[in-house]
Amino acid sequence: MSSRCSTRRRSRCMASVGFCPAGWNGARKTPNRNLLITSSFDGDQLTCVTHVTASDDPLQDGERGGPERVPELVRAGNVRCMRSFAEATTVVGTRDGVYSSTLDDEWSIGKNPHGGYMMALLTRAALTAAERPHPLAVSAHFLRSPDAGEVELRTEPVKRGRLFTTVHARLVQGGKVCIDATVTAGELTDAPHEWEATQQPPIKPLHECDDHRLPTEGGLLGNIDVRLDPHSTAFLRGETSEGEVRGWMELTDGTDFNPLSLIVAVDLLPPTILGLGHTGWCPTVELTYQLRALPAPGPVAGYTRCDALHPDGWFNEDAFVYDSRGRLVAQSRQLALSGNALEGR
Amino acid sequence: MSSRCSTRRRSRCMASVGFCPAGWNGARKTPNRNLLITSSFDGDQLTCVTHVTASDDPLQDGERGGPERVPELVRAGNVRCMRSFAEATTVVGTRDGVYSSTLDDEWSIGKNPHGGYMMALLTRAALTAAERPHPLAVSAHFLRSPDAGEVELRTEPVKRGRLFTTVHARLVQGGKVCIDATVTAGELTDAPHEWEATQQPPIKPLHECDDHRLPTEGGLLGNIDVRLDPHSTAFLRGETSEGEVRGWMELTDGTDFNPLSLIVAVDLLPPTILGLGHTGWCPTVELTYQLRALPAPGPVAGYTRCDALHPDGWFNEDAFVYDSRGRLVAQSRQLALSGNALEGR
Repeated sequence: MSSRCSTRRRSRCMASVGFCPAGWNGARKTPNRNLLITSSFDGDQLTCVTHVTASDDPLQDGERGGPERVPELVRAGNVRCMRSFAEATTVVGTRDGVYSSTLDDEWSIGKNPHGGYMMALLTRAALTAAERPHPLAVSAHFLRSPDAGEVELRTEPVKRGRLFTTVHARLVQGGKVCIDATVTAGELTDAPHEWEATQQPPIKPLHECDDHRLPTEGGLLGNIDVRLDPHSTAFLRGETSEGEVRGWMELTDGTDFNPLSLIVAVDLLPPTILGLGHTGWCPTVELTYQLRALPAPGPVAGYTRCDALHPDGWFNEDAFVYDSRGRLVAQSRQLALSGNALEGR
Repeated sequence: MSSRCSTRRRSRCMASVGFCPAGWNGARKTPNRNLLITSSFDGDQLTCVTHVTASDDPLQDGERGGPERVPELVRAGNVRCMRSFAEATTVVGTRDGVYSSTLDDEWSIGKNPHGGYMMALLTRAALTAAERPHPLAVSAHFLRSPDAGEVELRTEPVKRGRLFTTVHARLVQGGKVCIDATVTAGELTDAPHEWEATQQPPIKPLHECDDHRLPTEGGLLGNIDVRLDPHSTAFLRGETSEGEVRGWMELTDGTDFNPLSLIVAVDLLPPTILGLGHTGWCPTVELTYQLRALPAPGPVAGYTRCDALHPDGWFNEDAFVYDSRGRLVAQSRQLALSGNALEGR
């Protein structure tokens, strides 16, 4: 279907995620406002599928192109309903302080909704309750993994102060608390840091990470383009290295990271202990996020590291995210459990 | 009163805090079980005062010495009731999940009860409710600063799991929530780390920090002996340096740090932004603590650093605490506000 892509739409693809569908090997979703394009290269067959997202009248806006530009697969009903980050974190107030939402299975890792995504969704409810724009600090304790589908977000503002409001928030499914979080909601100005540590970790430029991108497996990785620094790909070759990972991230819905989606970014790079020879699912037990500055447009660079791995399976993972200006914009530290250690217990 | 110190008692002083009262210039409190010794050098007059702590029958235990060893000041009623860390964090169950306790003004900085101390007290209540021994992760949001005195600790176990129990806990005074915390309670074995990052920060040996100890001002600093690495004392000379502090800590009640008192240790070194030219009280807004290993006996080394200071006054402070074997035993990250920035708003 690539021949059906308009020039305008293709240039948007390139602008928003930095690649031309025709030259790309893998599955990728790219939005053009209400149109999403998935290109896949299956053997020697390039397929570019345009999806129509939920919209009152998706075909009436000239900017999106007329019906003649909608590929046959869409008209034949072969549409996977991809949602942008903003759509996938929509919350709807149901009663005082309680919101409903839907965990999107396109924001999952395997069958589990991604932790950072769920935390962002819960934080959005907390910010709504606080009536403050930015999550300055969010500490989330992960109790059980819900399924994709309906969830309830229960918020309770604990204190409304001059500079920030603190909200206790819980993500509940089937009457069971899945995430217990506390959110410090406030507002940051877009001013440069007064001071910043000079010892930033080295992360190779994005264009030097092209040959080391992760294989795309659908789900979350269809929504975020992750490219690893060659330094951090030893585990992909079955080798061990240091307990750290460096790479670049970009939302494939064409939007820039914001204070809410940065919560996904701090939890997105592969587990650091893969480089230490561990494998399997490493569940997050506690993750605290801090917004340090408002991010500039463009891709963000991530650096994660582990300080110590306890034989009981407990390890920390620190994440630092820098925007396209090289400014530290988000930090997190999580306590997680090694999948290897879990299996042995 | 120094002449009244028995040899046994003096050797205990040296063993527990590594100094002999006679050679020390400042105020310091040292316990000998239920006896506490304060030595002070006022001009050329050395005074060593022995206090009797709260005890049902403090003078009947031969280990503590007979009545003939109790100095006249004590017999005259000139007793300041010092409490050990264990005593200062005592909680008493009052009804289901609710505990009462007293914030000790000897564990304050100025008029404010120390944040790490209050967090440890609240965590002790949570561990009691969880019936698990170790705080693996504690995230605490500080909403308002209570006064020393009575507080209520309200706990709610959110999930009891196989490996850990998660408890939501609140420190309340006068009906107002002062700290909102969530505690992951579990149990760590005393095994060495399977892997640890090799890039530990340099901290000078304890004996090389002797000439740079902080002036003791009573309150919390009477309970914990803090000695700064010469590298980190520029701010004491009114100079600026890097946003980091290194030093050693020891409890003066003669006990070793444990998983609970390490919560105090991660919040104890002077604010890192003093080295960046900031002054004043820097209130903690959120602090997340992680227990990484069970500490060996002896003093602990602390390293704190700031990654970025936002012009709105927000900064992070990361703390790493190593035990006498050099093992990482505790970590924390806090989001705090600069006192300078607060004054300007």
